[in-house]
Amino acid sequence: MDIITVKTKYREELVDITPEVAKIVRSKNVLSGMAVIYTPHTTAAVTINENADPAVRKDIIAGLASLGLDEMKFSHLEGNSPAHIKSSLVGCSETVILENSNMHLGTWQGIYLCEFDGPRTREVWIKIIK
Amino acid sequence: MDIITVKTKYREELVDITPEVAKIVRSKNVLSGMAVIYTPHTTAAVTINENADPAVRKDIIAGLASLGLDEMKFSHLEGNSPAHIKSSLVGCSETVILENSNMHLGTWQGIYLCEFDGPRTREVWIKIIK
Amino acid sequence: MDIITVKTKYREELVDITPEVAKIVRSKNVLSGMAVIYTPHTTAAVTINENADPAVRKDIIAGLASLGLDEMKFSHLEGNSPAHIKSSLVGCSETVILENSNMHLGTWQGIYLCEFDGPRTREVWIKIIK
Repeated sequence: MDIITVKTKYREELVDITPEVAKIVRSKNVLSGMAVIYTPHTTAAVTINENADPAVRKDIIAGLASLGLDEMKFSHLEGNSPAHIKSSLVGCSETVILENSNMHLGTWQGIYLCEFDGPRTREVWIKIIK
Repeated sequence: MDIITVKTKYREELVDITPEVAKIVRSKNVLSGMAVIYTPHTTAAVTINENADPAVRKDIIAGLASLGLDEMKFSHLEGNSPAHIKSSLVGCSETVILENSNMHLGTWQGIYLCEFDGPRTREVWIKIIK
Repeated sequence: MDIITVKTKYREELVDITPEVAKIVRSKNVLSGMAVIYTPHTTAAVTINENADPAVRKDIIAGLASLGLDEMKFSHLEGNSPAHIKSSLVGCSETVILENSNMHLGTWQGIYLCEFDGPRTREVWIKIIK
């Protein structure tokens, strides 16, 4: 298992971790397999989405905000229940296909750590199965 | 493939299945691999979220309820379309990393069966890949 | 890696790809393993849900529409930010369990390509790990 450390800067943001994941994958020389990209936090998530226009990342944050969770009253006393809910909606991991030492992503796909309760130092774990 | 059976008690709830999954994983003595935790139902889901304050589980149910799906008119005559939609939003499986006979979960992470149309008897399937 | 090509017909729809995935899986004769079903697009998704009443598929599209994303103003100039957000909410892949040359799906489960910005020609990639 490899670990990527990400220092997030804002309360909510999508951080592009594609280069770091690709570097780890290439170093393993996997001819055929898959990689699980997993964040061990409960107010963050991992998603795959557009890698070209950075506006899409902001729109994803804005779209989730529009659900109205941030204005609700919740039981959990830490006050970050909206971040926990967004984490379960987006999910804490993604699985990608590996062939010939590379990740098979779509042309417009990048891998993102979703921060929903930052800024914090976050980890992303990469596990490769051949 | 191993099977966990869960009897849910309410229409909607998150049931902690972490101990049952951990027991199965430990019994396999996997040095390096991953486990897929999969529910074969279409009005339930599997998620990973906070394992400390039980209020978070209730807040996840309440947050999903706040989306307003339960008040909508749908075509499906069984009346449980909101549960089907929540199932696709949260997802029917999670993948976790295994090393040295243990699951690598984050400190605050637990694994939950999400019941959206209970009470019912549900299954969760565990498949380990080395 | 195997590739399924899907020509979608509408702006938004769920297309049943279960027979195509099952055929690929059967051709591999996998005694024990799993399959990743992955779409390389950022305005589409893969989900597992009810295979009996086709109304459920329409209700999933309608339920996502009810979140109000389609009426929001977004930054991304292509105008398809709601499709990107739905893609991250549903997720671009599913993982299923294989045993004795077959997929282990629940009785009522089918596998769907979710089109959120069609009609287009889409790909779904199938990767099997033994």
